[in-house]
Amino acid sequence: MSLNSFGHLLRFTTWGESHGPAIGAVVDGCPPGLQLSEADIQPWLDRRRPGTSRFTTQRREPDQVRILSGVFEGRTTGTPISLLIENEDQRSKDYSEVAQAYRPGHADITYDAKYGLRDWRGGGRSSARETASRVAAGAVARLVIPEVSIRAYLVELGGDPIDRAAFDEAQIEANPFHCPDAAAAERWAEAVDAARKDGSSLGAVVECVATGVPAGWGAPLYAKLDAELAGAMMGINAVKGVEIGDGFGAARLRGEQNADPIRPGPAFDSNHSGGILGGISTGQPVVVRVAFKPTSSILTPVPTIGRDGQATEIATKGRHDPCVGIRGAPVVEAMMALVLADQKLLHRGQCG
Amino acid sequence: MSLNSFGHLLRFTTWGESHGPAIGAVVDGCPPGLQLSEADIQPWLDRRRPGTSRFTTQRREPDQVRILSGVFEGRTTGTPISLLIENEDQRSKDYSEVAQAYRPGHADITYDAKYGLRDWRGGGRSSARETASRVAAGAVARLVIPEVSIRAYLVELGGDPIDRAAFDEAQIEANPFHCPDAAAAERWAEAVDAARKDGSSLGAVVECVATGVPAGWGAPLYAKLDAELAGAMMGINAVKGVEIGDGFGAARLRGEQNADPIRPGPAFDSNHSGGILGGISTGQPVVVRVAFKPTSSILTPVPTIGRDGQATEIATKGRHDPCVGIRGAPVVEAMMALVLADQKLLHRGQCG
Amino acid sequence: MSLNSFGHLLRFTTWGESHGPAIGAVVDGCPPGLQLSEADIQPWLDRRRPGTSRFTTQRREPDQVRILSGVFEGRTTGTPISLLIENEDQRSKDYSEVAQAYRPGHADITYDAKYGLRDWRGGGRSSARETASRVAAGAVARLVIPEVSIRAYLVELGGDPIDRAAFDEAQIEANPFHCPDAAAAERWAEAVDAARKDGSSLGAVVECVATGVPAGWGAPLYAKLDAELAGAMMGINAVKGVEIGDGFGAARLRGEQNADPIRPGPAFDSNHSGGILGGISTGQPVVVRVAFKPTSSILTPVPTIGRDGQATEIATKGRHDPCVGIRGAPVVEAMMALVLADQKLLHRGQCG
Amino acid sequence: MSLNSFGHLLRFTTWGESHGPAIGAVVDGCPPGLQLSEADIQPWLDRRRPGTSRFTTQRREPDQVRILSGVFEGRTTGTPISLLIENEDQRSKDYSEVAQAYRPGHADITYDAKYGLRDWRGGGRSSARETASRVAAGAVARLVIPEVSIRAYLVELGGDPIDRAAFDEAQIEANPFHCPDAAAAERWAEAVDAARKDGSSLGAVVECVATGVPAGWGAPLYAKLDAELAGAMMGINAVKGVEIGDGFGAARLRGEQNADPIRPGPAFDSNHSGGILGGISTGQPVVVRVAFKPTSSILTPVPTIGRDGQATEIATKGRHDPCVGIRGAPVVEAMMALVLADQKLLHRGQCG
Repeated sequence: MSLNSFGHLLRFTTWGESHGPAIGAVVDGCPPGLQLSEADIQPWLDRRRPGTSRFTTQRREPDQVRILSGVFEGRTTGTPISLLIENEDQRSKDYSEVAQAYRPGHADITYDAKYGLRDWRGGGRSSARETASRVAAGAVARLVIPEVSIRAYLVELGGDPIDRAAFDEAQIEANPFHCPDAAAAERWAEAVDAARKDGSSLGAVVECVATGVPAGWGAPLYAKLDAELAGAMMGINAVKGVEIGDGFGAARLRGEQNADPIRPGPAFDSNHSGGILGGISTGQPVVVRVAFKPTSSILTPVPTIGRDGQATEIATKGRHDPCVGIRGAPVVEAMMALVLADQKLLHRGQCG
Repeated sequence: MSLNSFGHLLRFTTWGESHGPAIGAVVDGCPPGLQLSEADIQPWLDRRRPGTSRFTTQRREPDQVRILSGVFEGRTTGTPISLLIENEDQRSKDYSEVAQAYRPGHADITYDAKYGLRDWRGGGRSSARETASRVAAGAVARLVIPEVSIRAYLVELGGDPIDRAAFDEAQIEANPFHCPDAAAAERWAEAVDAARKDGSSLGAVVECVATGVPAGWGAPLYAKLDAELAGAMMGINAVKGVEIGDGFGAARLRGEQNADPIRPGPAFDSNHSGGILGGISTGQPVVVRVAFKPTSSILTPVPTIGRDGQATEIATKGRHDPCVGIRGAPVVEAMMALVLADQKLLHRGQCG
Repeated sequence: MSLNSFGHLLRFTTWGESHGPAIGAVVDGCPPGLQLSEADIQPWLDRRRPGTSRFTTQRREPDQVRILSGVFEGRTTGTPISLLIENEDQRSKDYSEVAQAYRPGHADITYDAKYGLRDWRGGGRSSARETASRVAAGAVARLVIPEVSIRAYLVELGGDPIDRAAFDEAQIEANPFHCPDAAAAERWAEAVDAARKDGSSLGAVVECVATGVPAGWGAPLYAKLDAELAGAMMGINAVKGVEIGDGFGAARLRGEQNADPIRPGPAFDSNHSGGILGGISTGQPVVVRVAFKPTSSILTPVPTIGRDGQATEIATKGRHDPCVGIRGAPVVEAMMALVLADQKLLHRGQCG
Repeated sequence: MSLNSFGHLLRFTTWGESHGPAIGAVVDGCPPGLQLSEADIQPWLDRRRPGTSRFTTQRREPDQVRILSGVFEGRTTGTPISLLIENEDQRSKDYSEVAQAYRPGHADITYDAKYGLRDWRGGGRSSARETASRVAAGAVARLVIPEVSIRAYLVELGGDPIDRAAFDEAQIEANPFHCPDAAAAERWAEAVDAARKDGSSLGAVVECVATGVPAGWGAPLYAKLDAELAGAMMGINAVKGVEIGDGFGAARLRGEQNADPIRPGPAFDSNHSGGILGGISTGQPVVVRVAFKPTSSILTPVPTIGRDGQATEIATKGRHDPCVGIRGAPVVEAMMALVLADQKLLHRGQCG
């Protein structure tokens, strides 16, 4: 029960290692009759693809997706949709040192502890490369929820937050950081360049907002919308924290500050709740914030041990993202889409 | 698919409403041969029970648990363990106003949106009373992981954090706030008294640490230990944020600060990771932090609408916790135990 | 993962042992707004209840069901429905011998092999008493599928089949065997009396027909309607065979005999398929046949071994059904209802 | 929730249509450290492969399997194993008529009813071609249970049973019918030739025996070993009946005939139970019998309707198995392996 599946009614299963021949996803439970071709998926993969700016890894992966099943004459048939992405740029030699020693902050030591062996090439299964499969599956999920718009962007990088007053949605696609604040994006460019020069890396916070979610989605009590989102986001590589709405900030508010007054409509005066009450959507935008730790693969040497248990140190060479949070944004969006699509179908099944 | 079950191999299902005749849990998959009686469960329920100090709701519930199945001659048989807790103090009249109007911050409006009707007595199924079932189930889970110690405590209340330098584990049970800092506990008592007097409420942050977790627990990729914990915690009533290890703080560190150096043993110089790498336990303490919003039931009137859609306002009378985070700590512990016990069995099944 | 749950969207979990204080079921995922009270469940339990004729066990169990949750003001709320049935006639002394030796044909030896211990009182969890929980859950499921009528009856008892030409539906409730052939019912009465006198027991075949199932229910490929039914039926105590439509008889037909010609409507000239093609309902009646072995609890002594591994023999005293198939019919109906209701919701979720 | 996954701890998901570019399976939860290469899977696929004798379809499919993930340096890593089989002989033109009219006995009409559209090329997802994925997954499952031997063979074809007295295990691989009775195999050859000449088809009964299964496997109550087997077998294309042990024959025995006496060891005098009591293995051979209907694709014209609802008739040309039961035997074996491997891991997880 390695449990490489996610979702209830719309359920996807991913497979593949960083340096194996391919990676992929099987999306099961997609409603029939939706128009779907590779062209619906490829743009989302392109957004996540490495090597698109100097601020991401220079690994070259075209990430061309192929649909192997579940679509006939351009429409989904209700049967499993198999998505395949071949790995092309597999320079395993870059990783030879990793075979011998555990990289601190990586899953090397824990995979060995769990399984007694591991595919050390580029982190194997634990590589963030797997998230391409999620992005592909997420593209299918988006088709299930045409009423919903999802947008993720960075609100903090290297501890430097955006200015909320300068929030400009048009900026998000205008810079390589998915940053809605143009001034912050400039500061971040310098920070990332400096970190890379130092052989270091930076963390980031991604915010994701889904608008158009109707009231009533969520499956209480143990598949609440917020619980599903939290599990989905915390399972993304390098994520260490998840907030819904005001999140940890809500813990510093008083009851009367935090309650979102309800007006006829219904409408709400504020959205401290992040669009979720009792695990069910309110009809307001669903708001999630996700903390990415700094990339663990750094050139700065760190003390560690080898597989033989002896002390050594390791500097992770190779081509790495100086800030994994940047490429995390499209993955956060994909998981948001997958959770919402699943909850839509669950709701229809029980209450439709 | 209301999905009132949680867990994979150790799986529990809860049922019951705040003001129905009883609440309960069915724990399935518990290994056979463990010594279990009501006396193993009752102390944990007593810790969570309302009315134990002036800082919690004055609802009187003895919360006596009965084991109805799954135990024979004092030992678990491997069959489902049915746990029943009768509701005694059901003053439904307290809630008559709630029948007509939606309490802001509560699940009233979303349950109605989802189901088209709701049990308005005390919040019905969405009441935090349900968490007693989790605590009871968690007591069973603890027996499955005798190698693990779990301790939850408040590290912040009303925005006022503890002083980490003053951390004294012995203090945790010495004050009604599960607070490890005696001075903070005194300040919090004043703050909670003041908030209640004002008809207001406060939020809190609970930290939970599990020691003794061996390396290797966790089911990547979509039932990672941290993902399961995040889902489990975010599903607790009033929770809006979850962090593992340094959490959002990790997003402000540089790569070389955040990497926990590994030493022969293996041992680690630090625990920024919170005991989890790649979704699998490292052998270090597992550390989770959980943000509770302020109680939504407040005496201060808040604008809202009635079931008829008309504007009104509501002040939630009745007996409510001025800070639900206080009684949240035992629930956080229970969910930690349930996740870890489940992961132990999963690991044994796949890799044992 | 004792896995005491069944179903996907409409999911029930049962608990309880033959001679514990109570047994019960939690039904999760029931749509909201359905009228439900104990009066909707009790008649189905009464049909299954022991002691209603001399052809069933004389154990006296009123089998009064209580609804503990999930219903408010007479309607389902969408939250889990907890059903409780107290055990009253628990003469554990009848079973003292069973504590020492394994009854051939029973689960005594296998529960010990699996769990290392067992509740020997009346078979504990493996007792057919648990099926009362299924019947109660099935009564809820029936409300989910008002368009469907389900009828189970015996078509063979002790190797003596009914005469299909004499099939009279009105007879089914007119005799204690759920037998649609009055003449067969008379022969069976004699056969069962004789078997009981001999300290023996008899097997039976139950047929169950669901009419009104629309075309399109079924979740291929691994939750096909027929696969779900087969699993559901084979899991009933004492069942050793399941057929859909012509079943094993279909293996003796030629292709052109077995194909059910399709006419405009659509309509079918015949129903060899039992209303299921490719795991999906055709719109014709769904037909299942279930083989019950003879009761294993017999007065005739059979060689066995004790828990100490030594040879002995055992004659199972106590109050037992001479033919468990008789009381099996209501259980088969319940499982049919539970599978169909679940598939209806699944279909609505994916294709609705 | 098309539910194209099967299993609990060892879980596989299949995808692919008869005439799409490829089919495949993802096997999740396989224990780490097992030696696995394509050479461990290919022989089982070769046994099932079409075109190996004149008694099976002449479609030419090399069915070469590729392992795309989950194996490193020749051993399983504990991560998902992705298996891919390309479709080569896709003569879609053979199926053009099927696009317009529903073949009686096929899933054409039900897929349309369920999904509103279907991939009509060779039956699309409902084609028995998908069972190649199961056979591939089953080959992996076999590695998980090296203590178990599984053997499936035909015991009846076209209504003509084998002579149990002539049972010779060596014969099973010596004829194209997996028939343990040489004389029956000769008769069957004539019968199949005649049926094909007539444009007809025949049914068959497959028996499968697993030896070496230890006592204690099975997850009561709703994942009992026999219930899982029944669901697994009934879900195979063209299957209409499943028996465990004596099956329907048990319903004609008396209690003292059917009880398998237990001797010290433990050992049993007989195996009417088919190696399963109370849903848990006894340690005896596990015996299942599976009824396959005659192939629905026949040259004899049968009345049907078109997608337009108008009456027509159809004779299914193309290359079809005259008796699908023949190629069903390897699939039955695969499902037996998959169920047993899953139950082994479940048992280890809960009771290990």
